[in-house]
Amino acid sequence: MTASSETLTLAKEARRGARALAASSLSERNQILSRYAQLLEENADRIFAANAEDMAAESDENLLKRLKFDQSKLQDVLSGLKALIAMADPLSRVDLRTKLDTGLVLERVSCAIGVLAVIFEARPDALPQIAALSIKSGNAALLKGGKEASRTNQVLFDLLKESLGTFADCFHLLSGREAVEALLKARGDVDLIIPRGSGSLVSYIQSNTQIPVLGHAEGVCHIFIDAGADAAKSLDVVLDAKVSYPAACNAVETLLVHEDFEHGHLQSIFERLLAEKVELRVCPELMNRFAGTELSGKLVKAQPSDFGTEFSARILACKQVCSLDEAIDHINKYGSGHTDAILTGNDDHWRRFFSLVDSAGVYRNCSTRFADGFRYGFGAEVGISTGRLPPRGPVGLDGLLTYKYRLSGDGHTTAVYGHSKKFLHENLLSDRFEREWQL
Amino acid sequence: MTASSETLTLAKEARRGARALAASSLSERNQILSRYAQLLEENADRIFAANAEDMAAESDENLLKRLKFDQSKLQDVLSGLKALIAMADPLSRVDLRTKLDTGLVLERVSCAIGVLAVIFEARPDALPQIAALSIKSGNAALLKGGKEASRTNQVLFDLLKESLGTFADCFHLLSGREAVEALLKARGDVDLIIPRGSGSLVSYIQSNTQIPVLGHAEGVCHIFIDAGADAAKSLDVVLDAKVSYPAACNAVETLLVHEDFEHGHLQSIFERLLAEKVELRVCPELMNRFAGTELSGKLVKAQPSDFGTEFSARILACKQVCSLDEAIDHINKYGSGHTDAILTGNDDHWRRFFSLVDSAGVYRNCSTRFADGFRYGFGAEVGISTGRLPPRGPVGLDGLLTYKYRLSGDGHTTAVYGHSKKFLHENLLSDRFEREWQL
Repeated sequence: MTASSETLTLAKEARRGARALAASSLSERNQILSRYAQLLEENADRIFAANAEDMAAESDENLLKRLKFDQSKLQDVLSGLKALIAMADPLSRVDLRTKLDTGLVLERVSCAIGVLAVIFEARPDALPQIAALSIKSGNAALLKGGKEASRTNQVLFDLLKESLGTFADCFHLLSGREAVEALLKARGDVDLIIPRGSGSLVSYIQSNTQIPVLGHAEGVCHIFIDAGADAAKSLDVVLDAKVSYPAACNAVETLLVHEDFEHGHLQSIFERLLAEKVELRVCPELMNRFAGTELSGKLVKAQPSDFGTEFSARILACKQVCSLDEAIDHINKYGSGHTDAILTGNDDHWRRFFSLVDSAGVYRNCSTRFADGFRYGFGAEVGISTGRLPPRGPVGLDGLLTYKYRLSGDGHTTAVYGHSKKFLHENLLSDRFEREWQL
Repeated sequence: MTASSETLTLAKEARRGARALAASSLSERNQILSRYAQLLEENADRIFAANAEDMAAESDENLLKRLKFDQSKLQDVLSGLKALIAMADPLSRVDLRTKLDTGLVLERVSCAIGVLAVIFEARPDALPQIAALSIKSGNAALLKGGKEASRTNQVLFDLLKESLGTFADCFHLLSGREAVEALLKARGDVDLIIPRGSGSLVSYIQSNTQIPVLGHAEGVCHIFIDAGADAAKSLDVVLDAKVSYPAACNAVETLLVHEDFEHGHLQSIFERLLAEKVELRVCPELMNRFAGTELSGKLVKAQPSDFGTEFSARILACKQVCSLDEAIDHINKYGSGHTDAILTGNDDHWRRFFSLVDSAGVYRNCSTRFADGFRYGFGAEVGISTGRLPPRGPVGLDGLLTYKYRLSGDGHTTAVYGHSKKFLHENLLSDRFEREWQL
């Protein structure tokens, strides 16, 4: 258990260390990652032994699955590290360079945020993953592990410390509720909190801190099947979105169906979902539509609260709508701003859907389950954010960056600018990113 | 006075209106801005008359200066509107386009945030400025004006309403403390709060809401004069940073001087500052250095609390340091993350300063007063943010934008990807921004 006062001391230590890490070269940061990969590989048995102890102390079967750290999880971690090492330097990217006046040049350059606080639940593989992302992006981090994984986490963290060399001050492992409470109040010492766990954890953290939080409490994803949607593709997409991993935040929770979508096609989709053991909670209109048919006894009457609920299970709320706009309004009212899809052949319809649905991800004719940093090509994922402000949606390495403005002059003062002397404001950037000092 | 319940009703109305404004064309938004400019010009006398009533009811001289809305202020507002109309569309910019697989294309596209809440103090010219920025960026806004400017604000707002046409629901004028309290609690209805006023207003708002806040409570800017800094340029820069507008947030509040900076040059700087009626609050080392000289009686002994204080007045805290790193540490400890400058001829020194100082703006050999959206070439400024996360520093139109991901497929599902089927992740973007639908 880490006491409040110790947590704050470690946060301040991380803050001091963070400045050196943020100013380190790409090769220094990559060397840490290489050393860490090597140490993890060399100490695999030690990690597995600690994990066996954690597993032996646990009885909850769902938890055991997430707690497990075996050869396959280790390989995933190692290939993640390898991929990160291969990535270009996210720091020192110049994305704005403006000549304000002769000899006066403004640049905006990417830099590390500073000190992250990452709060994990059971999965121990999250520790090396998030530590590696922090290192690559030049950020220090306070890592608060779940108590179920404490022995595994301790070994993974000891190896991290060993690979950090002179940057050892940048990372600390915390434990216990008191540490979390201290982190939530550590405004000024902690710049960003990343909760990696259940919706209730994220929700608690968001409601109890004024530090920015990266994460989302809920994923209530929708699919709207438009009147003329392709039947076979709609079936494939809905099935994938519901049953390929029902506990995922990007799984579909509510199906909206246009009243003119062909009855037989809808019946096939419902039959297939039922065959996959998905409970269908349907609105009164759909209940009526299937009244007296074979399906009727297999459908459950939806309660109002089913719309907007993240079931994280083989349950799907279903509602018939009269129009595209009714679907859009429903999604904006009941959705969580995560990812929502339209299945349609009508170009005007998906464009209207894309414009008017407020979510971080708006999709057409594909599964909501594509909402994922790896699938988006970001290499790794810090988390998914359903807030309105950036970073939004699946967040990769870029979500751990900020920028600063650098202004370089030769004795320039402001008072001379006015009606006689004007700023030039000449854009000096041609490429998207440049990396060299050109001030 | 706007009651809590009414504030929430108006926020929800703005939310509904916001979607249409976000989906509107550039020409629709520019037409609103043109109509507003025309109405402001045609109704100048009505505005000035309302302003005269506000002025007559006020006695505080400082407030009167900010409250004044005359022909010159109107011209500034009109040229701001003209400049905004001329700017390219900030919406629908695609800055990421990746082919995930054949027929499956991901795009990231800029979009409006939604509903802003802008809380003003006395200056009525802030209302048309921020309303215009909101319109151009497709955002709805709840505008809470200061009571001193209520008559002027009402006229400015009535003209805005008139120019909005079918988008009238997007903007509402609120008043009174109860409205502010309701806004702070309107998470879900309000996406971003922008306080335009004193540090204490911003600070209060930041501490009492979980909605993101754009703004900064303090501007404690530093200038560090390095050992070999140019004497004449240092004098110019320090003077400009302190006396050109002492109440500005980007004015310098603390001067750090390397112990090896030539005594005679420092003496000249001090003499000039004293001649400009700047009170110099100096550390014991500097007090000793000038003991027995003509200056000695004119220097004030600094209190520890002077370092880190935003004086917003003709007062400058001065401290001698032994090294570059002592200066950097002092700034990171006492600064507010706004803007800090080094005056030096040494390339290694400013690079180290740029790397290690945590502030939104790091400058060399120029005045801290350049930290301003207009001076940076952003056209207009929403505010300056001293937080770590983007948007940071002076924030222009871009600070009122977010993005969404659009994914377009042809019945694509996720379960098929794995060891056999791989993602392509092919970057389809050559230019920085493209605007056409190319899905």
